[in-house]
Amino acid sequence: MDEGPDHAAAMRVMNFGPGPGRLPLPVLEEVQRGLLDHAGTGISMLEHSHRGPSFEAVLASAEGLLRELLPVPQSHAVLFMQGGATQQFALVPMAFGRDVAMDYVDTGTWSRKAHAAAGFYGRPRWAARGTNEAGAYVRAPQTLELDPAARYLHLTTNATITGVHYSALPELPAGIPLVADASSDILSGPRDIGRFALLYAGAQKNLGPAGVTVVIAARSFLEQARKDLPDAFRYDVFLAKRSAPNTPPTFAIHVLERVLRWVKAEGGVMAMDARNRSKADAIYGALDAHSGFFRLPVEAASRSRMNVVFRLPSPELEERLIAEAEAQGMVGLRGHRSVGGLRVSLYNAVEPSDAQALAGLLDAFARRHG
Amino acid sequence: MDEGPDHAAAMRVMNFGPGPGRLPLPVLEEVQRGLLDHAGTGISMLEHSHRGPSFEAVLASAEGLLRELLPVPQSHAVLFMQGGATQQFALVPMAFGRDVAMDYVDTGTWSRKAHAAAGFYGRPRWAARGTNEAGAYVRAPQTLELDPAARYLHLTTNATITGVHYSALPELPAGIPLVADASSDILSGPRDIGRFALLYAGAQKNLGPAGVTVVIAARSFLEQARKDLPDAFRYDVFLAKRSAPNTPPTFAIHVLERVLRWVKAEGGVMAMDARNRSKADAIYGALDAHSGFFRLPVEAASRSRMNVVFRLPSPELEERLIAEAEAQGMVGLRGHRSVGGLRVSLYNAVEPSDAQALAGLLDAFARRHG
Repeated sequence: MDEGPDHAAAMRVMNFGPGPGRLPLPVLEEVQRGLLDHAGTGISMLEHSHRGPSFEAVLASAEGLLRELLPVPQSHAVLFMQGGATQQFALVPMAFGRDVAMDYVDTGTWSRKAHAAAGFYGRPRWAARGTNEAGAYVRAPQTLELDPAARYLHLTTNATITGVHYSALPELPAGIPLVADASSDILSGPRDIGRFALLYAGAQKNLGPAGVTVVIAARSFLEQARKDLPDAFRYDVFLAKRSAPNTPPTFAIHVLERVLRWVKAEGGVMAMDARNRSKADAIYGALDAHSGFFRLPVEAASRSRMNVVFRLPSPELEERLIAEAEAQGMVGLRGHRSVGGLRVSLYNAVEPSDAQALAGLLDAFARRHG
Repeated sequence: MDEGPDHAAAMRVMNFGPGPGRLPLPVLEEVQRGLLDHAGTGISMLEHSHRGPSFEAVLASAEGLLRELLPVPQSHAVLFMQGGATQQFALVPMAFGRDVAMDYVDTGTWSRKAHAAAGFYGRPRWAARGTNEAGAYVRAPQTLELDPAARYLHLTTNATITGVHYSALPELPAGIPLVADASSDILSGPRDIGRFALLYAGAQKNLGPAGVTVVIAARSFLEQARKDLPDAFRYDVFLAKRSAPNTPPTFAIHVLERVLRWVKAEGGVMAMDARNRSKADAIYGALDAHSGFFRLPVEAASRSRMNVVFRLPSPELEERLIAEAEAQGMVGLRGHRSVGGLRVSLYNAVEPSDAQALAGLLDAFARRHG
């Protein structure tokens, strides 16, 4: 090889992209080392059979680490599926919401997509919307107007595009199953997993690469899923067949398992919590220090630690800041095309030193242009 | 790294597994080299945004290579999806078969699973079955009893478990859309892609790693897909959004693209055809030379070049042969649990020298025990 790992490590940029997101460098190095020969088997994990002992060990370890790290209570099952959150938007109402009422909370694009998919199966309604008078998303609503007949309440724990985050989950009356899209904040800090009837997360922000979706659900809830569906859509079949009714995304699960090992070695979810707090404090600190220059649309209590969303006084200044950041090796800062502005994604693997560097640039830029 | 690529290459075993299958060593080495830093971007393809230029180039190249190699006519679209053939078993009838008649051809487990999934949406029936009087799968039926009202005819071009293969497709009256599961023989030899209304293939046999599914379909057929479905299930949305209505399995597509480059460098689909013919000739030659010892259930005209299925006189001899092969570094030979016996999978990336080595073992074993 003409490029050794040391050289490649030095070349890596500061990636603040919204997902697929950065992965820990030690994980990438480990995956690279084992790529031709997984654990002395003479076979790459890109080639290993999903029915063989090598992949089965990876799958069991991935589940075990998720159970230990989040933690996941024994009442709940852990599944690995495909298709991302977008497929879960459809599978949840297909399995649980046929021809019935369902409550959804709106905190942005992804909530609306989940609501739209549910409309093909049952009767979703909005239990709350996180918008202000102008229609902008500003908060994670704590007050919900629940339909007593609703089969479940669905919310997005962290809205990647709007930067609206549930740091504390809303109180729900007993008996209302809570379903959530936790794609962009799972494992970023402590969360009581036992409160969710079903939680799903595309892996490509905090857990691993794109191509695998983690589903964590109460076994008692999964038992209520419809069974008159093809195997590909049956949560109970994925549970009975240990996430492999057909060939699972073996390599993506392998990388996810390595990421979970890294989280454990770093100190677990509380260490991620402290790490993410320090990064978010650095960025929000720089933004708040120039509150006349930077405009943060989200109310303080609902600010995301994973996706910091803000505007500058003009699109021209936004472009200039993005260009200056790129010149300094900081990439992935452009806001989603639907909202504009900038977005700083601070997933687990983003280094605190990178956030400090960006905070420095934000401060300097505001001083020059504010 | 304490293990260089040369060492790892020397340690690789002869993998005849049914899938996920072997990948070409030069592809694995390339993927390994670029793992920390894709093409000088400072970002791994495990991390690259699916909306960025690096992945978009990979996606465009993967599609372009499939178009060039198979080849795919301009009338047809190429999509990359998730969930494997098992998900396509459901998506095809969901999109095209609601409440209508559909014809299926039965050549084994996978055909039956496709038929079963269709039953949740419409009225699938069997247009032909490849079984003999004893119910064993022995042939790819050329004579079909078509229902004139059927929305499409579905068949499995190569049945991975039973080893039943369509070398020539059956004649169909004009106007009957042909839908096929080509997971285990796509790109293994020439095939007139224009004959298919829709063809799907899990990548993990001839195209790449598990986690990405290739769909090739006539644009005119895709236009007829139902639109009252969630985005995750809409072929037309995958077409309009260039396989990325949500985050696609970026890394799996990257590896697939590298495999396609390898196929092209080796000489394209005709070179794969010659390569696969030589491997199959070696294995079938050894088996046929001891026809009193080895029992091949499939009729000669329907024999698969990808999955050679056979039995020995006793389960004890089968176990002994599998053990002797493993002792010589040949793995993945156990037949599917539903049919027993042995299965030799000879996907594109399996080396002809490995097939020669196995043929030698088969011959020697039969001489000793026959």
